[in-house]
Amino acid sequence: MKSLIFPELRAVLTAIAPVTDFEIAGYQQHLDRLTKPIGSLGRLEATAARFLAIRGGQVDLPLRKAVYVFAADHGIVEEGVSAYPQEVTRQMVLNFLSGGAAINVLCRAQQAQLTVVDVGVCADFDASPGLEQQKVRKGSRNMLHEPAMLEEELQQALQVGFHAAESAAAQGVTLLAAGEMGIGNTTAASAMTAALTGHDVSAVTGTGTGLTQDALAYKRAIISACLSRHTSDGDHGSDPDPLWILQSLGGLEIAAMAGMILRAASLRIPVVLDGFIVSAAAAIAVSLEEKTGDYLFAGHCSEEPGHRYLLAFLRLEPLLSLGMRLGEGTGAVLAMPLIESALRLSAEMATFDSAGVAEASL
Amino acid sequence: MKSLIFPELRAVLTAIAPVTDFEIAGYQQHLDRLTKPIGSLGRLEATAARFLAIRGGQVDLPLRKAVYVFAADHGIVEEGVSAYPQEVTRQMVLNFLSGGAAINVLCRAQQAQLTVVDVGVCADFDASPGLEQQKVRKGSRNMLHEPAMLEEELQQALQVGFHAAESAAAQGVTLLAAGEMGIGNTTAASAMTAALTGHDVSAVTGTGTGLTQDALAYKRAIISACLSRHTSDGDHGSDPDPLWILQSLGGLEIAAMAGMILRAASLRIPVVLDGFIVSAAAAIAVSLEEKTGDYLFAGHCSEEPGHRYLLAFLRLEPLLSLGMRLGEGTGAVLAMPLIESALRLSAEMATFDSAGVAEASL
Repeated sequence: MKSLIFPELRAVLTAIAPVTDFEIAGYQQHLDRLTKPIGSLGRLEATAARFLAIRGGQVDLPLRKAVYVFAADHGIVEEGVSAYPQEVTRQMVLNFLSGGAAINVLCRAQQAQLTVVDVGVCADFDASPGLEQQKVRKGSRNMLHEPAMLEEELQQALQVGFHAAESAAAQGVTLLAAGEMGIGNTTAASAMTAALTGHDVSAVTGTGTGLTQDALAYKRAIISACLSRHTSDGDHGSDPDPLWILQSLGGLEIAAMAGMILRAASLRIPVVLDGFIVSAAAAIAVSLEEKTGDYLFAGHCSEEPGHRYLLAFLRLEPLLSLGMRLGEGTGAVLAMPLIESALRLSAEMATFDSAGVAEASL
Repeated sequence: MKSLIFPELRAVLTAIAPVTDFEIAGYQQHLDRLTKPIGSLGRLEATAARFLAIRGGQVDLPLRKAVYVFAADHGIVEEGVSAYPQEVTRQMVLNFLSGGAAINVLCRAQQAQLTVVDVGVCADFDASPGLEQQKVRKGSRNMLHEPAMLEEELQQALQVGFHAAESAAAQGVTLLAAGEMGIGNTTAASAMTAALTGHDVSAVTGTGTGLTQDALAYKRAIISACLSRHTSDGDHGSDPDPLWILQSLGGLEIAAMAGMILRAASLRIPVVLDGFIVSAAAAIAVSLEEKTGDYLFAGHCSEEPGHRYLLAFLRLEPLLSLGMRLGEGTGAVLAMPLIESALRLSAEMATFDSAGVAEASL
């Protein structure tokens, strides 16, 4: 099988530099001189040290925060896998644009810039501030019968994500998050998680926006059928091609998020992940180039059961674990003040020397 | 044995009203009409609903946030139970007053008002903005040989806490946190936790600010000796007198925090708890009047091993779990944006009706 990697993607992958343990250790040494017992800020310390290493120590506070919410529909909803009708994708995009959704409230509170990107909603939108129209196709294809995307659709969607990261970089964004809206996308993310991690469909598939137990069993059967169609059993866990998983089982917004994450890493912009769907995109990105993981922070652990498998796959520990399962980027934005606080502590706390505080005597 | 409850305390205890499930359910019904799947904001929903019930639905945003850091020394440090020398209590109070400690950085970031209250530091301080001089005694007594406080010292310290809550109420504070500084106070909190919960000293005692394993074994032996002196074995777990536990095994700052928590509950001010020491104070408060728990939110779970036993005793689930063990109120202030975000979501999100979004169809 020919490689699905195309020239623009190859250029991004080769531009991703590692964040070295040596660089991180230098910032940890600074944290150890601050007026607190060694390590007493817990995971905030590793968060600050890695963030500073990513940015070469140059971090203006407050951070310049941005969230891109990618919206697309999914052909698989024809099979009846979601608790909500497909038109809710369009309705929620309008809700984002009028400021009434959860992600709007949280972005206002955190002063994070919000951009909605239509990569594939089954509807037309009027021009609106805060909306970028980058539609690749009205909805992905029904992956029960064909790959969710054609190869050129996958490439276009990835490049929508590249452009988002480039636009963020041009605006001086120093902390980026991806969010998503797409009725049916937990079905895609569950299929991708099973294919990427080798875990059982039953383990990685949950009720999404709120299925009954019968509907959940049906959703699992559909996902298993999709997996059988597009991946041979022998591929599970044995180095499956991540781009093929994305093309056959993903979705337009998931591809765009994977593209944004990769391009952000190549531009040394830290990305805080939201929940299950965003993490499926991140898992593709890290599978394509492992060093991408150096730029990622896990905002939260979703209640959707597949998420913990993806976090383990990504070797990331979430900052929050509040039983949320909303998406839109909400878990990522809620974690932003923790990341910012970690950086403020590093920047503003007194050292033992400067404050005249005695160090441990035992 | 005569009751240790004194008239001012009895007045506070009787003024604490329950927050009823009926009131909370009313606010949950509102949350269920917002444009998100039912329950998808996870524990933020219960947080918002209970907070709103506490305040009778009247919450101005941003919240008016305040942190009182109570500082005191501990007689037990004579026995060599801490990694840091006693003078660090004084040095850290000066660090708080000059703005260089972790709690200062976090309070600035969250726009929370910070007040340092000297209830019992073994040093004299010049008058300073942000410092309240309420010293009951220079340090608690060495609980290996006598109760940590005389009965009148306990009463005074509790009333220092009452006054802090009253002062916060007078300033219109709508979210309150207690923090502490006191070299030796994990020893006191561990002894209190063992006495209150009946768990083994070895389970509830940790390395505090950073003891070696040998020093930890010694700290546990000292705590066991203190428990033997002040509580008979038969008392463990069998309804021990919480005020006696506080008087004999606590400390001046812990008593003040218990007082602040009780008085805040009586004034219907929600309190977000910090870590192990603050939770020991809260456990005393809830033991004296169970309804106090209706007003408490657990900010985080500390790395100090006794904390999870106290959270279980308090039946509270922490909002954060970042492996922190610093105290000062830092874990509480880090959780404040989560509480505030929960309230903003409740106040600002569109409903399904207002946004024209379809509800679940399955």
